[in-house]
Amino acid sequence: MNAEIITIGTELLLGQILDTNSLYLSKKLAEIGINLYYKTSVGDNITRIKEMLSIAANRSDLIIVTGGLGPTVDDVTRDAVAEWTGRKLLLDNELLHRIEQFFKNRNIKMPENNKLQAYLPEGALILENKVGTAPGFILEHNSRIIACVPGVPAEMKPMIETGLIPYLIEKYGAGKFIILSKRIKLTGIPESLIDEKIKDIFIESKNPTVAILAHQTEIEIRLTAKAENKEQAISLIEKLKREVYNRLSDNIFGEDDETLEEKVAILLKDKKLTIATAESCTAGLLSYRLTNIPGSSLYFLGGVNTYSNESKINLLGVSAETIKRYGAVSEECARQMAQKCREKFGSDIAIAISGIAGPDGGTVEKPVGLVYIAIDFKGDIKIFKFNFGGLRDVVRARASQMALFELYKLLKTS
Amino acid sequence: MNAEIITIGTELLLGQILDTNSLYLSKKLAEIGINLYYKTSVGDNITRIKEMLSIAANRSDLIIVTGGLGPTVDDVTRDAVAEWTGRKLLLDNELLHRIEQFFKNRNIKMPENNKLQAYLPEGALILENKVGTAPGFILEHNSRIIACVPGVPAEMKPMIETGLIPYLIEKYGAGKFIILSKRIKLTGIPESLIDEKIKDIFIESKNPTVAILAHQTEIEIRLTAKAENKEQAISLIEKLKREVYNRLSDNIFGEDDETLEEKVAILLKDKKLTIATAESCTAGLLSYRLTNIPGSSLYFLGGVNTYSNESKINLLGVSAETIKRYGAVSEECARQMAQKCREKFGSDIAIAISGIAGPDGGTVEKPVGLVYIAIDFKGDIKIFKFNFGGLRDVVRARASQMALFELYKLLKTS
Repeated sequence: MNAEIITIGTELLLGQILDTNSLYLSKKLAEIGINLYYKTSVGDNITRIKEMLSIAANRSDLIIVTGGLGPTVDDVTRDAVAEWTGRKLLLDNELLHRIEQFFKNRNIKMPENNKLQAYLPEGALILENKVGTAPGFILEHNSRIIACVPGVPAEMKPMIETGLIPYLIEKYGAGKFIILSKRIKLTGIPESLIDEKIKDIFIESKNPTVAILAHQTEIEIRLTAKAENKEQAISLIEKLKREVYNRLSDNIFGEDDETLEEKVAILLKDKKLTIATAESCTAGLLSYRLTNIPGSSLYFLGGVNTYSNESKINLLGVSAETIKRYGAVSEECARQMAQKCREKFGSDIAIAISGIAGPDGGTVEKPVGLVYIAIDFKGDIKIFKFNFGGLRDVVRARASQMALFELYKLLKTS
Repeated sequence: MNAEIITIGTELLLGQILDTNSLYLSKKLAEIGINLYYKTSVGDNITRIKEMLSIAANRSDLIIVTGGLGPTVDDVTRDAVAEWTGRKLLLDNELLHRIEQFFKNRNIKMPENNKLQAYLPEGALILENKVGTAPGFILEHNSRIIACVPGVPAEMKPMIETGLIPYLIEKYGAGKFIILSKRIKLTGIPESLIDEKIKDIFIESKNPTVAILAHQTEIEIRLTAKAENKEQAISLIEKLKREVYNRLSDNIFGEDDETLEEKVAILLKDKKLTIATAESCTAGLLSYRLTNIPGSSLYFLGGVNTYSNESKINLLGVSAETIKRYGAVSEECARQMAQKCREKFGSDIAIAISGIAGPDGGTVEKPVGLVYIAIDFKGDIKIFKFNFGGLRDVVRARASQMALFELYKLLKTS
């Protein structure tokens, strides 16, 4: 089965928004072995959308259309597909009820134009929207499958995963070959050093192929195998994966969609440990990340974002003398912040971060990017000093990342 | 002149790389008033590239092709264009010399296959590559312009700016019209209600055009004008902008790249007010956002992320009786959190957030998504109650957003 993606939206052609949807869809199709040959972006224009559908139907079995399903007048995907297939738009009462319920649950009167979203081309199979009001739908037409999904990623993704993918697998089986990727996630190591350590694998391995992708605070090594079935692909990947782990285990924290905060949360829960935070330059980012995980109240007690010196002294109990003598960005201050934080919250662990996020406030001795992290683990305090380069948001992101990573390493061996 | 972009690369179809090139090109074309109607990605396959060129030539005057110009066997753009236009690939000696020089300057022996890059279709105009070895080129063919540039952004961009754009302006008088956009940013209002309020403008206005774009916590109204020069475009936009402001001023907080936290920061600094936060379900997100702005220490004193009930009572001083009687997610608790927070930090303003982020912890009376926000403004406390739909991260993002927005409104009128 050959697929193609059409993303609808004038904003995509004006350079105002990055098309991340088709990246996601590409991956999902590769996972079930469907070949994707074309991706096209076209504006919110009914004539051009219909023309694109004709071109696509001429060369592809599966056409996935994203965007243009909203309730506003520039959302014309529904109409374009109906016109192009020569089908009427029919009101689906159950769908209308669901949309009305969506607003009712939020105590909002449903605007009249949302009713439009309950109209679908005759014969369409509904892809339920669990997040918003725009339903997706699948249409089989002249032995082509047309799947329309919303452009908002949070609405589109569950629809693909629980709707379209199962439908394709059940109805058409997946492709002959499948492509499977394994992402190994690392932090606290520069990309160039990873490259040095696995360069030979990189060059020699043809299946799986190896790619290195750098993100703001993490790096992914992606192994992509092509095989006749999933088991075969997994076995190809496992062999190479072991080799990567052998060389880089110190910096690996997870795989695929695992997050560092998730891995930390699992260890905290397993070991029945509680934690609290005291943040200065990150001002809540670490605390926010630690609570990104459902059920975080099992381990997270709370945090203080002591941004001003006064709050470090008055709220947390850091000694004024320490700040005067060593400065707020110092090993001594970070140590006291962690210690006092653990006392205040009565937690097993406390993490403190104090640093200079910039762009101002740096000196020759204490440049922008200097960050101290202290972890008080049941009274045993460890201090870590970093010099993160980069802009304010990068420094803050890296500081929270390394705080989590040092905690993760400590928890693994404790 | 109508343009279209074809990005070449199998990696673009496997979901392994985000296509940022076409975003860049879209913007550049808009700036000189060239309409972009299609963007297509296609793999490194000579047959499909040729087919795409036929489709593109059928509907567009200018075809920009990116990628596939490297020295390796899977780089077939050069061949595809030559075959499709029926032109020979000729060795350009000056180009070969430049490529040889590139390696010589780096003290590297030129690999044999780089010689391939010195072959260009007959009649091609060279776009010099000042960064790497892959030259770009422009070909005029049957009154179509085909411009091929490398896929590496650092090599492609200078070629566009110093080669293609000046060429287009000189030869075809692009730049005759320019396209300018103004984004008006709103929050706290559903997309459908915005549509209802400006539907008529939406339908009637052809220049500027109007588009509505929904993001997780914000909505943008984008006005895009086409005019002969910048002044004219600005004046077209200003007129319509006033009309949009007239109807939606209650929910507008900024324009273009302005952020809500930035607008709040400006007001706090102007009015010389200090602020502190007490967060439960958002656990630091509001505090983090308030400190995203350089110089935030001028107004932000600190925050407490009182996630557990104990920390609300012991650290902040909320009465145990209140929590027992009304629950932590209640108007009463939020009120006390704000009040006590302002006392603790000695700030002019304190904001408290308490809610149920989910996925667990909801009841019929207090469902997931219920959030109370309290703002204590110099002793005058206002409470806001919300029912945010959606997943955990959406609830938390919306809670921090509405806390900032209510604060913004309060600051504007205070």
